[in-house]
Amino acid sequence: MLFNKISLGGADMKFPSIPDKTPFTPLVVMELAEDTNEEAVTWLTSRIKDTQQSGGAELMIDRLTLDDNQDPKKENQNIFIVGASRERLLVGAEDVGLVKEFNDGSMRGFTYANRENFKGFQGDGDNFLSMAECQFIVKHELDTLRARGETHVPGYPKIRLYPGKSVVRRIQSKGILVQIFPLHDKEELKRLSSMWYQNVQLSFQPLDDIRHYFGESLALYFGFLEYFTLAMVPMALIGMPYYLFDWEDYDKYVLFAVFNLVWSTVFLETWKRFSASLAYSWGTLSRKKAFEEPRPGFHGVLGINPVTGRQEPVYSSTKRQLRIYLVSVPFVLLCLYLSLCVMMVYFSAEGLVLGLHDEEPTFWTSLLLYVPSIIYAVVIEIMNRIYRYAAEFLTDWENHRLESSYQNHLTLKVLVFNFLNCFASLFYIAFMMQDMQLLRQSLATLLITSQILNQFVEAFLPFWLQKRRNKRVHRRSGKVSPDQELPFDQQVMLEADMSTYLGTFDDYLELFLLFGYVSLFSCVYPLAALLAVLNNVTEVYSDALKMCRVFKRPFSEPGADIGVWQLAFESMSVIAVVTNCALIGMSPQMKSYFPDSETQLILVVATVEHVFLAFKFILAFVIPDVPRHIQIKLARVEFESMEALKKKVMYTVESVNTEPVDKVATRFTVCTQL
Amino acid sequence: MLFNKISLGGADMKFPSIPDKTPFTPLVVMELAEDTNEEAVTWLTSRIKDTQQSGGAELMIDRLTLDDNQDPKKENQNIFIVGASRERLLVGAEDVGLVKEFNDGSMRGFTYANRENFKGFQGDGDNFLSMAECQFIVKHELDTLRARGETHVPGYPKIRLYPGKSVVRRIQSKGILVQIFPLHDKEELKRLSSMWYQNVQLSFQPLDDIRHYFGESLALYFGFLEYFTLAMVPMALIGMPYYLFDWEDYDKYVLFAVFNLVWSTVFLETWKRFSASLAYSWGTLSRKKAFEEPRPGFHGVLGINPVTGRQEPVYSSTKRQLRIYLVSVPFVLLCLYLSLCVMMVYFSAEGLVLGLHDEEPTFWTSLLLYVPSIIYAVVIEIMNRIYRYAAEFLTDWENHRLESSYQNHLTLKVLVFNFLNCFASLFYIAFMMQDMQLLRQSLATLLITSQILNQFVEAFLPFWLQKRRNKRVHRRSGKVSPDQELPFDQQVMLEADMSTYLGTFDDYLELFLLFGYVSLFSCVYPLAALLAVLNNVTEVYSDALKMCRVFKRPFSEPGADIGVWQLAFESMSVIAVVTNCALIGMSPQMKSYFPDSETQLILVVATVEHVFLAFKFILAFVIPDVPRHIQIKLARVEFESMEALKKKVMYTVESVNTEPVDKVATRFTVCTQL
Repeated sequence: MLFNKISLGGADMKFPSIPDKTPFTPLVVMELAEDTNEEAVTWLTSRIKDTQQSGGAELMIDRLTLDDNQDPKKENQNIFIVGASRERLLVGAEDVGLVKEFNDGSMRGFTYANRENFKGFQGDGDNFLSMAECQFIVKHELDTLRARGETHVPGYPKIRLYPGKSVVRRIQSKGILVQIFPLHDKEELKRLSSMWYQNVQLSFQPLDDIRHYFGESLALYFGFLEYFTLAMVPMALIGMPYYLFDWEDYDKYVLFAVFNLVWSTVFLETWKRFSASLAYSWGTLSRKKAFEEPRPGFHGVLGINPVTGRQEPVYSSTKRQLRIYLVSVPFVLLCLYLSLCVMMVYFSAEGLVLGLHDEEPTFWTSLLLYVPSIIYAVVIEIMNRIYRYAAEFLTDWENHRLESSYQNHLTLKVLVFNFLNCFASLFYIAFMMQDMQLLRQSLATLLITSQILNQFVEAFLPFWLQKRRNKRVHRRSGKVSPDQELPFDQQVMLEADMSTYLGTFDDYLELFLLFGYVSLFSCVYPLAALLAVLNNVTEVYSDALKMCRVFKRPFSEPGADIGVWQLAFESMSVIAVVTNCALIGMSPQMKSYFPDSETQLILVVATVEHVFLAFKFILAFVIPDVPRHIQIKLARVEFESMEALKKKVMYTVESVNTEPVDKVATRFTVCTQL
Repeated sequence: MLFNKISLGGADMKFPSIPDKTPFTPLVVMELAEDTNEEAVTWLTSRIKDTQQSGGAELMIDRLTLDDNQDPKKENQNIFIVGASRERLLVGAEDVGLVKEFNDGSMRGFTYANRENFKGFQGDGDNFLSMAECQFIVKHELDTLRARGETHVPGYPKIRLYPGKSVVRRIQSKGILVQIFPLHDKEELKRLSSMWYQNVQLSFQPLDDIRHYFGESLALYFGFLEYFTLAMVPMALIGMPYYLFDWEDYDKYVLFAVFNLVWSTVFLETWKRFSASLAYSWGTLSRKKAFEEPRPGFHGVLGINPVTGRQEPVYSSTKRQLRIYLVSVPFVLLCLYLSLCVMMVYFSAEGLVLGLHDEEPTFWTSLLLYVPSIIYAVVIEIMNRIYRYAAEFLTDWENHRLESSYQNHLTLKVLVFNFLNCFASLFYIAFMMQDMQLLRQSLATLLITSQILNQFVEAFLPFWLQKRRNKRVHRRSGKVSPDQELPFDQQVMLEADMSTYLGTFDDYLELFLLFGYVSLFSCVYPLAALLAVLNNVTEVYSDALKMCRVFKRPFSEPGADIGVWQLAFESMSVIAVVTNCALIGMSPQMKSYFPDSETQLILVVATVEHVFLAFKFILAFVIPDVPRHIQIKLARVEFESMEALKKKVMYTVESVNTEPVDKVATRFTVCTQL
């Protein structure tokens, strides 16, 4: 046995029960293709095991031994379990720039040398890092395992390697690495589920626990979902009487719209403050973006990072800008235009069919009435898929250095297209056809069907499928009750079969479109807020279920805010000001106030709209994005780090004259020298 | 003699020629009231001379001895010259957070301990700090000289002192300290003037030299003035044919307006980048705001600054917010309302008088025609003065901790009021009276008269007065030619008599209003840009003349950007989009395109306006505020400082085991310990 089991502290770390066959705490699973050349397997495992000095990842890796009562031919034999020693994880925590609470209550970048001064670090550092953090570190170390002398993957002369190229990414894109995922922790998952969604209760979600298990990005999503829901409750309450008493009075609609606009601005601004507080306590607010490692897919010639001075691939930012502005932007615009054309064709086809039906109403013409809608829905779905694929390809091709930048560009592209697809027809009905009754109808239909469909397709159907699969696995392993624990290898195989969670993108997109339905036409359909609240309450449960039961555990992703979505929601609320003002201006009641001159009406509406927009911007300017007490804490760390930098050279000079405290100290002294 | 002349290096520093009577390089002049109690004088000078350990400023101070051939009774005997040793200045440079170029080309916070590693630091550090920097440091040290045990100013039992209160500020507000100003450097001033304005030439201003002599804030003002002028040249060129060929075609006006709007956005965005480059090379971009010392006028109970951990007065930010939102904002709104009322009264009075004149035109009624304008001008002037006074009082009362924050709040207040006063009548003529001919006339009148008046009142009149005064002083001291050098004491007295420059506020305000004249109604008066360019070219010369010849030298002020003015100019360019779209929509040509429906015209105009606004925001979002190469440099210093912080505790532990390198080192170790 290669690994020293004592130093791993598996039992102390309370990670999944370790089977006798695995000599370390299993964290991450790597599944290689069944027919992988054994030479490549040997090379890969030895590169992963190698020490960092010799360019390896210094992790632990072991092949999963399958239980005897299974047909070994049927199952993939190339499944590997990856883990790491406690010390390696702590050093890795420094590499990924983890920010932890210091003994004095401030949040500081974790360093191995300084580990004893961090809060919650006891003894050897058991329980200091959560399992999600450990898995994130292992993932990071695997991703940054780079080719050195190899010209190709051993056993595969055609799969070439260049110095500095990420090995794992390379074999993943060539199909040798089928998948890589972190393991669930059955015990903790059970605890989390019972707190989170298993008991219907009136309480906030356990955000800290969600973050502990799934990482910051997902916790921020659930935090935003909850915040968004709470923020819509007042709107829903105010909207209810409009429905109950059938208020058709536009004065009241105006009041509702005004409340809506102010409220959405305040809600988005205060969310920024709330998320800053969350991110600060999770240590991601002060995590520096520029020091992120380049994303594994990033390619370029090996050079020196001008910020860190470390060797890594570099790629000209001018080239990237050219690709964005000369290719991606025109492509997106073209797609938007095409989508608009399709919509216009749809509306004219519908008009044509309606005309035909009105002329000679027969059974066939009444059937024909549905044809345009069906074709339109199918075409939209096809376009959506093609566009999504193209957007991913283009964003990949733009070659962004950081994962966050890649995500932002992809999100923006998909967002704009989805916005148009969802709302263009509503805009057409509202402003071209000016048919408020039809608008209300379409809005309600879209809102309700998309909600029901989404939650069904997204959570309950997969949950049911997964449950069936679970049962099958349990039956096969000879255990009938799904409550009984599976043997480790069976559990790994079960998780390997689960679907992969593709990130928060689609969840946010859903909320974004919902926000659009609620705010864009709020003054003609006040009930939308109530429907949205109901949707979000069930969304919390279905999303929680989906995360805990349906999908493989995702790798935790550090995040300080909801990123480009904040901008998207804010833009939506600006557009909502324009649409609501226009809708109110078009109402018959408003027109009756200005019987003589439509011009005056429009001027009044335009003025009110400008005042609102100005008000929104002033409000956004006046409310600070980060609460004051957190600003102070951040400034303090920054101040201290500036002071430390000033003294750095002095200390370096000093330490040359001294016997270094230990080997690590010398290494650090050398790499911080100017 | 107390001071050791050798250590001062006066001759090396090339500062004003030192008279035999003063034992150190004179930097700053403090003028106390003639009848100051001698006890107070003794106390003050000893506090200023005291070492820092015992709470003094550790500066050098000496009474100015007046020449014999003057009547000692006529001149104030309480004029003091303040200077400092070279070492004291270097330590002070660290206190004020000066950022200097490091040996590796990056900009870093200067530290005394690390002085040898900064570029341009040779030998004992002669010429390392510019005279303006030295004067800034002396000013800062005087300002932060705080009362300790004293309960009152000696000799003045009624002027009470509290621990932590700024002594200099106290005696200044009580009239004991009449003024404090830095001395001019005749030699350097002569060199600067010849490069800057004495030879009419086609070249850029010597911004680095201006910064060297006057500090960053002023240099940024002149940089902005130049940039603004250059940016308007294309506008002026395009606007010229409209005037020359008498183009009255609105198609062409639309083209001009479109160019104008896009141009002003681009120009403001690129200025941000340019000013970031300037500020980076001057070391003010990375200077941290939160670590600024509180402004001398700031009062509060002595507490601990939560950022730096240092003792200083603190004041609840909630209280300040309440004062701002419950008192200042309503007051400003009230004043704006009053100003609008006055304008309405003026317009109705003018209408009344015009009616009277039209009924029975006599000599008296034609005289009466001028009365409303005259009264209005006088009332506006009075209101402006009262408002300015009130704004200063209110902002003072808001008790801002930082000078920059005080300035921003004052600027915003005065700005809004001035904007209304200047443009309200133009808006009224444009949109209520819809009289384009009158608008063009008023615009031209306002623009030209304000330019001529401003430059005359602001620069040439004071210059002429100052010249007369100079001659008188020269005559009195027995020297006839004004080119001959005055004796040192005469020179000090001459400068003490010069007017005080009150900051860049009025200069920026002038540019801001000019920008308003050019952009708000650009589509009815394209010639405005040309007039503005001509104005700015002369403005450069008159402002330069004013700074070098008319005013006392101002204390240098570090600044990284033009602050709230950037926002003001950007807001103006947003308002310009709205006004220009509205003006074009109101034009007869446009109306002739939509002969049937005015409604449609307005809708088209409103749509175009929204597209423009969206375009502006997208452009502002897409263009990064700081050029990439400077972003990288900043990130590198930040990265290194984070790395240094991580290692800090380790080094501190280390240095305890070692013999400290010198006394300073131990002091720093202690204060950076956690």
